[in-house]
Amino acid sequence: MGSPLLGVNQLLAQRNRAAFARSGALVLNLMSSPGSGKTTILERTIEQLAGRVRLAVIEGDLYTDQDARRIEGKGAAVVQINTQGACHLDADMVWEAWQQLAERQPQVLFIENVGNLVCPAEFDLGEAARVAVMSVTEGNDKPTKYPLLFRQASVVLLNKVDLLGYTDFSLERFRDDVGRINPRALVFELSARTGEGLAPWCQWLEEQVLARSEEDELHGRAGP
Amino acid sequence: MGSPLLGVNQLLAQRNRAAFARSGALVLNLMSSPGSGKTTILERTIEQLAGRVRLAVIEGDLYTDQDARRIEGKGAAVVQINTQGACHLDADMVWEAWQQLAERQPQVLFIENVGNLVCPAEFDLGEAARVAVMSVTEGNDKPTKYPLLFRQASVVLLNKVDLLGYTDFSLERFRDDVGRINPRALVFELSARTGEGLAPWCQWLEEQVLARSEEDELHGRAGP
Repeated sequence: MGSPLLGVNQLLAQRNRAAFARSGALVLNLMSSPGSGKTTILERTIEQLAGRVRLAVIEGDLYTDQDARRIEGKGAAVVQINTQGACHLDADMVWEAWQQLAERQPQVLFIENVGNLVCPAEFDLGEAARVAVMSVTEGNDKPTKYPLLFRQASVVLLNKVDLLGYTDFSLERFRDDVGRINPRALVFELSARTGEGLAPWCQWLEEQVLARSEEDELHGRAGP
Repeated sequence: MGSPLLGVNQLLAQRNRAAFARSGALVLNLMSSPGSGKTTILERTIEQLAGRVRLAVIEGDLYTDQDARRIEGKGAAVVQINTQGACHLDADMVWEAWQQLAERQPQVLFIENVGNLVCPAEFDLGEAARVAVMSVTEGNDKPTKYPLLFRQASVVLLNKVDLLGYTDFSLERFRDDVGRINPRALVFELSARTGEGLAPWCQWLEEQVLARSEEDELHGRAGP
């Protein structure tokens, strides 16, 4: 992954960003370890916002479409990208997927990146914001060991808080570490499995959509 | 990560493999997601085998030496490699680290790779065997989503079995999936946190060491 490749990616990410801005979609790039629960969080989020927010999902995975089928089962528009072994999505892959989703005029587009705390953080996809997901069971050391990911995240989702009592995870240390690495990050603590803490995250999403549509009216942009 | 780079790595891995064979050390390359518990497993393994097996550890991490300090605290010889953002160890990094460990004449050398299910699987480090670690809390889909890692592993460690009762993880499905992807893999189910299931894994390690030293005597190789 030399800098020329990253340079080309940056140009293509700007093309994506312009297209997303024209469409009015809020685009969020979700990054995490494998198994932190990104797909389950998306499933629950789609359920919660059904009928209120038009959602679409781009699913990144090496080879399978398991996650896309799970999302489809919840009724959201979804496109699967298989990276064929590459450890991250790039802007061009996302552009291709967007061609199939644009006509659905999503208000929020989630890009679920390949499960990986390293490579995805280096590739701009044209997203409006990055969402770092980690789970209680991964241990307290993740924010300090993968600072790039957490520094770039506008939102941090701490998942699997239902397992807090069965692990040595310290919420206090987590909040301290994230606060030091990225003081501006919005942190939501939740359990996609039990639904605990899901409401504030969904409410935040809905507020972002509302703010965008008000802005659109203000600027006379053609809403859907 | 083009093929020329992998080609060079392969040559350097063969140099490592020859050096490891001369030393008599059993070298195991541990790969997993971030947070699956590799370091905790190593801490417990070092405790269990203290005074019986000479262990050394090469710790791979992006930037920090947190894991190396944990291992050092347990009394094993350890060298930290910082990849400065790269998502895997390569054979040359391991060669450099080995120069500092060879004189300790370890019987088992653990190489704890960068937490990542994709990149490390592509790089031979000269190890005798690969150990895939995954934890119950990462969910059942990991073996089928990251088949390369599981196909190449001689040993699969399923960690955090103490949390089985609090998740939807199916042991039966896990055993089926691993058995289909890699029927020859040895599977150990354990909890590094509670110590459950640790003994069979440590016993297997000890048997490997014993088998090697008997082989050395047979071939008149200068043991330590």
